[in-house]
Amino acid sequence: MSSQPTALFALDLTGTFAFGLNGALTAVRAARLDVVGVVVLGLITAMGGGFIRDVLIDSLPPATLLDWRYYTLATLGGLIAFALSRHLRRLERAIDVLDAVGLSTFAVIGASKALDAGLGVAPSILLGVITAVGGGTIRDTLVLTVETGVYGLPAALGAAAACFLIRVLGVRYGLNAPEPPETRGRKDSREAGA
Amino acid sequence: MSSQPTALFALDLTGTFAFGLNGALTAVRAARLDVVGVVVLGLITAMGGGFIRDVLIDSLPPATLLDWRYYTLATLGGLIAFALSRHLRRLERAIDVLDAVGLSTFAVIGASKALDAGLGVAPSILLGVITAVGGGTIRDTLVLTVETGVYGLPAALGAAAACFLIRVLGVRYGLNAPEPPETRGRKDSREAGA
Amino acid sequence: MSSQPTALFALDLTGTFAFGLNGALTAVRAARLDVVGVVVLGLITAMGGGFIRDVLIDSLPPATLLDWRYYTLATLGGLIAFALSRHLRRLERAIDVLDAVGLSTFAVIGASKALDAGLGVAPSILLGVITAVGGGTIRDTLVLTVETGVYGLPAALGAAAACFLIRVLGVRYGLNAPEPPETRGRKDSREAGA
Repeated sequence: MSSQPTALFALDLTGTFAFGLNGALTAVRAARLDVVGVVVLGLITAMGGGFIRDVLIDSLPPATLLDWRYYTLATLGGLIAFALSRHLRRLERAIDVLDAVGLSTFAVIGASKALDAGLGVAPSILLGVITAVGGGTIRDTLVLTVETGVYGLPAALGAAAACFLIRVLGVRYGLNAPEPPETRGRKDSREAGA
Repeated sequence: MSSQPTALFALDLTGTFAFGLNGALTAVRAARLDVVGVVVLGLITAMGGGFIRDVLIDSLPPATLLDWRYYTLATLGGLIAFALSRHLRRLERAIDVLDAVGLSTFAVIGASKALDAGLGVAPSILLGVITAVGGGTIRDTLVLTVETGVYGLPAALGAAAACFLIRVLGVRYGLNAPEPPETRGRKDSREAGA
Repeated sequence: MSSQPTALFALDLTGTFAFGLNGALTAVRAARLDVVGVVVLGLITAMGGGFIRDVLIDSLPPATLLDWRYYTLATLGGLIAFALSRHLRRLERAIDVLDAVGLSTFAVIGASKALDAGLGVAPSILLGVITAVGGGTIRDTLVLTVETGVYGLPAALGAAAACFLIRVLGVRYGLNAPEPPETRGRKDSREAGA
C-alpha cells in the first residue's frame, strides 16, 4: 500500500467508497434486503474484484482486508445507500462519475499489481479488468440467489460477533479457561484490530 | 486442527455433516440431479465457505481437504440426502437444528481463524459470515446453472478416477515407465491418502 | 509445466484451445456480446477450472497465467468462435470431440496436481472434476448476469491498457518522474512480458 503514489491511493479509496455506495444501491433496488444484506453486497462490490486479483497473484490476505480504510469506506458507502437510497436518485450523475473513477483506478491498480507480481502484459490486463468488474459481477450473481444467501446472515453475524465479544472479554478480564497464573491477563496485541 | 478445543471440533464435524445433508437435500428438491451431482453440491455446501475463508487468510490447501473426516462426513450427508430425501421430510425440524448448529459453529471458527491470521475485528466478522453462508450461496448459484455444470461431471469423474487407478496400479505392480531398477516398486507414501 | 509428459502437455493445450472456442461459442449463442465479452468468457471457460484448482492447492499465480501458450490459445479459440460462429455449426461434432479431449485431460491433470500437492485420493478426484467443469460453470453463471458484468468492460480494458502504455513508454523514453540520473532509462526486464 505505502508504495503506491498518494494520488493513486486517494483515487483507490474514492473508488472503494463509490463501489460500496453504488453496489449497495443496486442491491437495494434489485431485491428486498435488510441493512446487513445491503452493506455486505456493497462490501463485495467494492472489494470482490481485488480479492480475485490478490488470490491470483498470491498476495494474501487481500490488501483491502488488511487496511481498515478500505472496508470502512466501503461500509460507509453501503450504509449511506441503505439510508438514503431514494434521495440519491437526484445525485445519480455524480455517483456515475465516482463509479467511473473507481472503475478506471481499479483497472490500473489491478494491472499494475499483476505486472509487479511478474505476470506478462496480456494476463496483467486481464487481471486489471477482473479487478474492475469482478466485484460488481459477484454482486449481480448474489442478487440472483439472494433469498438463500441472506437467510443465515443474521445468525452467522451474531455468532461471529459473539465469538469476538467472548474473546475480547476473556482477554480483558481474565475470563479464560484456567492457565498457569503468570500468563493470565496478559494482553493479546492481536485483539487490538487490523 | 489439533489446536482446536475438542468440543468445537466435534461441533465443526457435526455442522459439516449437517451442511452436506441439508445442501444435498436442497439440491435434490431444486433440480433433477443424479447421485454425483447431489453429493458434489452437498460437499460444496459443507466446504465452500471454508474454502473462501482459507483462500482469503492464505491457509491453503483448505483444512477440509486435508482432514478426511470433513469430506467423508459431508459425502455421507449427501448420500443420505439422496437415498432418503422423502423420508427426511419428517425430520425437518431436527435437520434445521443441526443446520443452525453448523451455521453458528462455522461463523465462530471462521472469525476465529481470521483473527488468528492477523486480521482486524471487522474483517474477521466478515470472514466468519462468509464461512457460514458461503457454501450455501455457491450451491444456490450452481443450482441455477445446473444443466451445464453437470453435463461433463460423469466424464470428468471417470477421467480423474482412471488417473488414480493407473497411478495406484503403477505403484503397486511396477507398471511405471522404465526406470532404474532400484526405484521400481518403491512404495509411494503419497498414495496412502490424506 | 516442464515436468509434464509431452503428450499430456499437448493434450492440455488442445483442451485449452477447445474450451476457449466452445466456451466462446456458448457465450455467442446465449447472449449478445461484443468481441471482448466473448473472448473473456472463452478465456474463463478455458482457464477458470484450473484457477480454482491452483488456488486450492496453493500453486499461485495459476499455471495458465504464467505460460503464454495457454492464454494465447484460449484467446485464439475465442476469436475464432466470435468471427466464425455460424460456420462452425458444421464442425459441431469435431468441436465436441476436442471438448471431450479437454474435459478428460483437465480432469486427469487436475487430479494429478492435487495428488502431487499432497492431497488424498478423494479430494484429488474432486479437484480433477473441478478443474474439468469449473470453467464452464463460471461461464454459465456469468452469462446469467452478463448485462452488468460486461457494462464496465471497455472502460476497464482501456484503463488497464493505458496503464501499460504509460509504463512501457516511461521505461523506454525515460518519461518517469524525476529520479537520480544513473537510474533513468534503465531497462526494466519485467516489461518484457511473461
